[in-house]
Amino acid sequence: MSGKSKVVVIRHIGDEALGIIQANPNIDLVLWKEDTQAPRSWILENIKGASGILVVMGEPVTRELVDAAGPSLKVVSTMSVGYEHVDQPLLAQHKIRLGFTPDVLTEAVADITVMLAFMASRNVGETLVIVQEGKWSTVPWSPFLFTGPQLSISGPSNPSARTRLTAGFLGFGRIAQATLHRLIAFGVTDVLFTARSDSSKVSQEILDKYPTLHSVKQASNDELAAGSDVVFVLTPGGKETYHLVGEEFLKKMKSNAVLVNTARGTCVDSDALAKALKEKWIWAAGLDVVEGEPNISADHPLVKEPRAVILPHIGSATTETRVGMATRAARNVVAGVLGEKMEAEVDLSRFKSTV
Amino acid sequence: MSGKSKVVVIRHIGDEALGIIQANPNIDLVLWKEDTQAPRSWILENIKGASGILVVMGEPVTRELVDAAGPSLKVVSTMSVGYEHVDQPLLAQHKIRLGFTPDVLTEAVADITVMLAFMASRNVGETLVIVQEGKWSTVPWSPFLFTGPQLSISGPSNPSARTRLTAGFLGFGRIAQATLHRLIAFGVTDVLFTARSDSSKVSQEILDKYPTLHSVKQASNDELAAGSDVVFVLTPGGKETYHLVGEEFLKKMKSNAVLVNTARGTCVDSDALAKALKEKWIWAAGLDVVEGEPNISADHPLVKEPRAVILPHIGSATTETRVGMATRAARNVVAGVLGEKMEAEVDLSRFKSTV
Repeated sequence: MSGKSKVVVIRHIGDEALGIIQANPNIDLVLWKEDTQAPRSWILENIKGASGILVVMGEPVTRELVDAAGPSLKVVSTMSVGYEHVDQPLLAQHKIRLGFTPDVLTEAVADITVMLAFMASRNVGETLVIVQEGKWSTVPWSPFLFTGPQLSISGPSNPSARTRLTAGFLGFGRIAQATLHRLIAFGVTDVLFTARSDSSKVSQEILDKYPTLHSVKQASNDELAAGSDVVFVLTPGGKETYHLVGEEFLKKMKSNAVLVNTARGTCVDSDALAKALKEKWIWAAGLDVVEGEPNISADHPLVKEPRAVILPHIGSATTETRVGMATRAARNVVAGVLGEKMEAEVDLSRFKSTV
Repeated sequence: MSGKSKVVVIRHIGDEALGIIQANPNIDLVLWKEDTQAPRSWILENIKGASGILVVMGEPVTRELVDAAGPSLKVVSTMSVGYEHVDQPLLAQHKIRLGFTPDVLTEAVADITVMLAFMASRNVGETLVIVQEGKWSTVPWSPFLFTGPQLSISGPSNPSARTRLTAGFLGFGRIAQATLHRLIAFGVTDVLFTARSDSSKVSQEILDKYPTLHSVKQASNDELAAGSDVVFVLTPGGKETYHLVGEEFLKKMKSNAVLVNTARGTCVDSDALAKALKEKWIWAAGLDVVEGEPNISADHPLVKEPRAVILPHIGSATTETRVGMATRAARNVVAGVLGEKMEAEVDLSRFKSTV
């Protein structure tokens, strides 16, 4: 083992990704082989003297872990787009690099974001169960049975249809823009979005890109709530966006609007949303994330709301995307160990001044 | 009542549509007011001497009904895009016009067609239930948990992703083309479709319309089954398409492909599809229609398949679309009674030569 760098991988992330690490003659791979996450004790034991560690979402990268590794640790590579589980100032202090896997999952999450908007508006939560329980024949066709708001433009063949459709984006990063790209084809005519800084240039770029759009406007949270037919929560998590969507926001939304959250559960106040659905402040909600997940019981207030459609955080769960994330994480850890450029590295320089 | 034309409406189709009929001073509206379909006996009794009748899907327009109406009957207006429930040769023989409501529902059905493709590929049937039953915490994250094939293109950020994605359309009418319009935004690169006659002109038009497409090709059923990553059944119903998708077709499909049927239940052999899912000939299926609906019990072979996502025929169930269909049916019946041009009339001339 002398002269070789040790890389610890805390769970089996697929042969393709592991092969990338194993292919490097200067690296010894230490892998937790079972199809579970490695126990913390195993990690702390095996990370001694490691040059790199590859972790997944939810495994805390803390002082305990960094101390256990010792001064050899050069890189932490997380197979995730978020890195809330990593103590970034600590890594900065020890000059340990941090790799992550953004971008790869953009399209998979955008797909499910659009899907959830339609599942919510079209009463899929309720209607799927009717078929599953063998009750289809008990709900005879009637003109307005199971009708919800249409999140597309019907065109001139239907004079009763709306001619404008506004999509609101809380956060307007890559996933939001990939979601918008899809919605243009459904006939969205207007866009509202929030952003931290002035984004008039972004607005103009989007308008230029999609000639069918009537307007693209940076908005306040209030304006966005009031003006949108469908609101997408696509902000980062954390303190700044904690309960961004609460009673105040929900009360300002249109009564036939739909809320979709495919970002972080903490962005939406679950109790407020359950109340909004029960009291019909809004039409429905589609959620891939819920605050406190995965500890969401059958009597959780949102689970009990028929107009809430909830998926267990499967936004990036396509084979292609997960292989893409795993292989990127593998390439990142190898690059970090070798001191090369990573495909995606978190800029920790802002923490260095505080040391 | 003398001098006025009687129009019978067999169920309450909303105030907006009924208002169109009531607004005409030369028409007497006879309406079954309850929120159910009128009993046949009520229809047969009230249709005597009527000039027009407005029916909904599933109400048989037969010799019995036409005879009960008598020679005054000028028009049958059905609030539906299909008219299998109407005896067309009989109407042609009696010079009774037939109005219907196509086009209006195109966008609503295209929306749900796309939604079902993603619900099937992304394991929504299985995952929704996990949350509903409070079992989210029992399925801890793992790299490939609930992963399905991605029905979108991931782009250069993911070298593991596919770069071509083929959508196959059995039938390439308005709904199919509206579905394709949406899928272009998800990155579909190639199109296969079936059509009764040579459609090279259509292929070229589609290619010209969507510059991101690599190919658009009219195909045989076999070619389409073998070449498509997602197959959409969007043909008319009836004898010609009965069990169009059966064992033979399903065996030729790719093992990670998805089947979507939002057309007619009879187009797909349910037993064959259940077998295909159980034996993993294909990945999953999304269905808005099932042969024999609505008599689909909880132990129906497709209901029992976790990879079959089944909705109770809600393709056109948006408020806007149903109001649009109802008002179009109302305008059709008024136009028929007055001898004016209808918005959408079935051409019955092909039946006249047989009289």
